[in-house]
Amino acid sequence: MAKRSVQYVTIIGVGLLGGSIGLAIRRRFPKARVAGVGRRRSSLDLAKKHKCIHEAYFDAAEPVRRSDLVILATPVGAFEKHLRAIQPVLRPGALVTDVGSTKGQVVCTAERICGRGGAFVGSHPMAGRENKGPAHATADLLHGALCVVTPTKHTPAALVRRTEALWRALGMRTLCMNPAEHDRAAAAVSHVPHALSALLMLLPKDDELPVSATGLRDMTRLAGGDPEMWRDIMTTNQKPVLASLEKLSRSLKRLRTMLENNNARAIERFFARAKHRRDTTLK
Amino acid sequence: MAKRSVQYVTIIGVGLLGGSIGLAIRRRFPKARVAGVGRRRSSLDLAKKHKCIHEAYFDAAEPVRRSDLVILATPVGAFEKHLRAIQPVLRPGALVTDVGSTKGQVVCTAERICGRGGAFVGSHPMAGRENKGPAHATADLLHGALCVVTPTKHTPAALVRRTEALWRALGMRTLCMNPAEHDRAAAAVSHVPHALSALLMLLPKDDELPVSATGLRDMTRLAGGDPEMWRDIMTTNQKPVLASLEKLSRSLKRLRTMLENNNARAIERFFARAKHRRDTTLK
Repeated sequence: MAKRSVQYVTIIGVGLLGGSIGLAIRRRFPKARVAGVGRRRSSLDLAKKHKCIHEAYFDAAEPVRRSDLVILATPVGAFEKHLRAIQPVLRPGALVTDVGSTKGQVVCTAERICGRGGAFVGSHPMAGRENKGPAHATADLLHGALCVVTPTKHTPAALVRRTEALWRALGMRTLCMNPAEHDRAAAAVSHVPHALSALLMLLPKDDELPVSATGLRDMTRLAGGDPEMWRDIMTTNQKPVLASLEKLSRSLKRLRTMLENNNARAIERFFARAKHRRDTTLK
Repeated sequence: MAKRSVQYVTIIGVGLLGGSIGLAIRRRFPKARVAGVGRRRSSLDLAKKHKCIHEAYFDAAEPVRRSDLVILATPVGAFEKHLRAIQPVLRPGALVTDVGSTKGQVVCTAERICGRGGAFVGSHPMAGRENKGPAHATADLLHGALCVVTPTKHTPAALVRRTEALWRALGMRTLCMNPAEHDRAAAAVSHVPHALSALLMLLPKDDELPVSATGLRDMTRLAGGDPEMWRDIMTTNQKPVLASLEKLSRSLKRLRTMLENNNARAIERFFARAKHRRDTTLK
């Protein structure tokens, strides 16, 4: 996406991620105008105060009419409503993308509303933290993080290139996968770890918590995330998450058997395999 | 523990934690002599080079003869051997403690070897990180962290006070629990989270790992720990860990049922409960 091609941008949802994208766009494309759309005056005011957006709207249709780029940055549960509202007023040649953490259902809905070969290309910028809201937004949130772009066989190649170029211009690495592949991978590396973080937070009894140290704190950082957002992620990625949870349940059962048999050798091998994989892939 | 009471200390096992305790003792008690006992010349040399210890020994009996304080800092699997070796040469009035992550079996073994009301008081300084060895040792590792002290009904009160005073002098907070209470709590807040960290590290397929972000990285930090140490922790805390894993399996099953039923309301409530507990207890 060449500099001239971002002139007027609408970001629907000015939370942490929407706000950070606004800041990154303004830094990278100083001549672009950024409009923010939100439900609450207070969020929009904060987003303006923190210079995430130039203009604030309750209704997306007005700024979208003028936009060459529209980014959906609300919880995924609200995407359908917004796509229906903006589709009739989209400019020819405009690109619509999103930041949703699940892609199969989102992309399917978008192709239904915007048409196959329409303006929509799915994106999942994998950047976040527990703090919510535009007051915590920072352009650096995106920097160096991965954005998965999820075209279908109907998506025009030029739109895919524009989408990848956009995220790269904002400092992200990009990777193309089809929506189903993305959702299976995200279930295993993100959604199931998140669910386990919440389960572990609820595991100790009250009088056991004072014994906790950095281990539990790290393992439950994700559990501090927004319940509404994670509800949407789980329910819009139901089958891959269930498949991944079932796989985890099976490996948990095998570990319990090792421990019931007090099989020290097998337990050590299990931990050694995990350590080896981490040391060779995530370090 | 007044300053004068630490004069000659033997630390058996000069890894990250043993080395860090050596550094902390030397900083807090500048007149004390610290002897380190290890199996490998290289570790002992490193511990000396990093000023964790003054003197190095392969055989614990020699420095223990002169010590008013002995700290077991090897993996717990080696404690019995060391306790048998030092018991005959312990000075009257010497205090023996340890850093083991499990306490029931350790304390039982120690009371068998040192006698009930003997020199041993169990300790679990909850400080650690993934980097191994004395080269990463730092006195600050202990600072502000919790040390659980685990007397039994046979432990003389004066020895318990001395043990707590020692760890406090080194900058730690202390908490007294009986060994069984400690082990149940540690299973829930530490050992089961560790096991889950390793299970999550092994969950994704190879081609799914590139999609991982900070979430998986945080959730698998613990999986980078020493497999031998964690094998010993699991096998010496078998029953509490199994009970806690079973509790986790049940809550995992409930979550899977919510998701099979696509019960968005219940899923949101589950995440909200976890978030509330984290925000109110671990922040």
